[in-house]
Amino acid sequence: MPKISELGHLGKAVRQSLARGAPDIDLDTLPQSLDLSPDKITENVLSINSQTPDDRQRFVNEALVKHMHDFVREVSLTTNEWMNAIEYLTRVGQTCTDLRQEFILLSDVFGVSALVDIINNPKPEGATEGTVLGPFFVEDAKIIDNGESIANEGRGEYMLVKGRILDLSGRPVANCAIETWETDQDGFYDTQYTDYNADCRGKLYSDQEGYYVFRAVLPVSYPIPNDGPVGQLLASMNRHVFRPAHLHMMFQAPGFAQLITSLYFTGDTFLTSDAVFGVKSSLIVEPRLITEEAEATKCGFKNPPFYLVEKDFVLVSEQEAEEARERVRTQGP
Amino acid sequence: MPKISELGHLGKAVRQSLARGAPDIDLDTLPQSLDLSPDKITENVLSINSQTPDDRQRFVNEALVKHMHDFVREVSLTTNEWMNAIEYLTRVGQTCTDLRQEFILLSDVFGVSALVDIINNPKPEGATEGTVLGPFFVEDAKIIDNGESIANEGRGEYMLVKGRILDLSGRPVANCAIETWETDQDGFYDTQYTDYNADCRGKLYSDQEGYYVFRAVLPVSYPIPNDGPVGQLLASMNRHVFRPAHLHMMFQAPGFAQLITSLYFTGDTFLTSDAVFGVKSSLIVEPRLITEEAEATKCGFKNPPFYLVEKDFVLVSEQEAEEARERVRTQGP
Repeated sequence: MPKISELGHLGKAVRQSLARGAPDIDLDTLPQSLDLSPDKITENVLSINSQTPDDRQRFVNEALVKHMHDFVREVSLTTNEWMNAIEYLTRVGQTCTDLRQEFILLSDVFGVSALVDIINNPKPEGATEGTVLGPFFVEDAKIIDNGESIANEGRGEYMLVKGRILDLSGRPVANCAIETWETDQDGFYDTQYTDYNADCRGKLYSDQEGYYVFRAVLPVSYPIPNDGPVGQLLASMNRHVFRPAHLHMMFQAPGFAQLITSLYFTGDTFLTSDAVFGVKSSLIVEPRLITEEAEATKCGFKNPPFYLVEKDFVLVSEQEAEEARERVRTQGP
Repeated sequence: MPKISELGHLGKAVRQSLARGAPDIDLDTLPQSLDLSPDKITENVLSINSQTPDDRQRFVNEALVKHMHDFVREVSLTTNEWMNAIEYLTRVGQTCTDLRQEFILLSDVFGVSALVDIINNPKPEGATEGTVLGPFFVEDAKIIDNGESIANEGRGEYMLVKGRILDLSGRPVANCAIETWETDQDGFYDTQYTDYNADCRGKLYSDQEGYYVFRAVLPVSYPIPNDGPVGQLLASMNRHVFRPAHLHMMFQAPGFAQLITSLYFTGDTFLTSDAVFGVKSSLIVEPRLITEEAEATKCGFKNPPFYLVEKDFVLVSEQEAEEARERVRTQGP
């Protein structure tokens, strides 16, 4: 059973390619494919791909090929539509830079990112739900003490966020690292300014009783980048490009699974048409406007008016998280 | 029912985006989506996409969303796999240049290009089958008379190709334009050389009785470009990167549908494992080695040894082609 390189009758191009490292296969081990009639082509592709050594890659690619072929057959994709898709995907790839990921955005607006998140981070009953991380997380949040502010003065209306971190049985989770980030009152993250300074972004830890409290500003709705191929696609579908206001929050405590989530706010214009499908109703909070100094002092922040958001977060252990993922793998999401 | 721009409480980022042309939607007309539980996300995405004004785009995108989501659910795509896919597609896009289309290559090696071709160019019983055009067709073939050569001297072993162009009822098709192109004996197309001159590429016309005859060289197997993401993918699947030798032929006659096809050759090493799934058994010919001068003269070419390929091509009318496509649309391929 000779490898390709051992066969006679090979042209110069084939030899060159093998010399440069193209896979040198034993052809006798390959499935034979021929006669690409419409009902044979999928099985021919699957058959030759069945040589893939990695089990998981083979399994994933098999499903991918079936769905791509079924899609093409179902819609009788025209040659023009195929060419438009090729050119569209090429533009999406070429719009990506170190600072911009247009393919993630494409995945976002088709709900694929949200679905991947749901499947990979299922939460048992009673635990706080997660949602998409988004592109604006960076590592350099300043560390604050409980009660301090993540936002500089003048970035928006005051918002005080407080509550507890708990486990599934209601016990407090102490020393939980909390990272939080949000837009300013204009709808921009700090990283979107040309003169970048970490702002509206901070890190704190829950206390021994699981309590946390920090000051921020009321975030506002904002557009996803819409000057590229994804923006054009949304326009062609009569879809807007906006996300409802939200406060990102990420939790990490020893022995617990990481929780990546966000809080959304009642009454937001875009709450039911989020361009990237990140809203979950369990994550919507109603900020309460505090105007009285006495009530403000009771909250631990003396400067009314401000919005008060009270929210407890329930984390799951690594083991509970793995059990939930296993349920998804075996029973589906 | 106000449009977005007429609402209060819009942040600066939203206003700027609308001013720059982001779609200004009447939110009351949008379907409401919320609560992205695993079983709701697909219907939420379909629901908001249902605003797409173009019927065909809406239909195609609906099937696309269903297949993408079903794929993610079926394989329980992990966050890492999703990120790898994002990065892979980005690399594919960024490998594309004016001279190289890596997304078409990706479509080719998954059999998608061949499937699109089959669906869009179905042939009724008795007609010559088509196959993929490939990336090496260019417009500037030299025009030759019947009997002349498309290849300069020294490009490979002589091959004489002759036969007739016929319609479905066996009548000759006169004045049919025939474009044909192929690799030289080293496995390279003329366009792959840095000093490009049209060679192994020509155009001729069938005579009044539908006969054609031209001289070429025996083409050889060659690799598809394998120094990019598609080459890496094939290597990871234990697939080789080669195509069997073939002679491209494209036919166009007044009143007839264009036929894009290729001839393949018996005995080729890669005939049953073509990297792009272009081989159809009805397109395989057996070149006959002619060594006797008398027999050579009878063929109309006096310089043995050469390979003789005799092949008739059966074209379909525009109407027969449309009927075949309609059958695919209604009954599937």
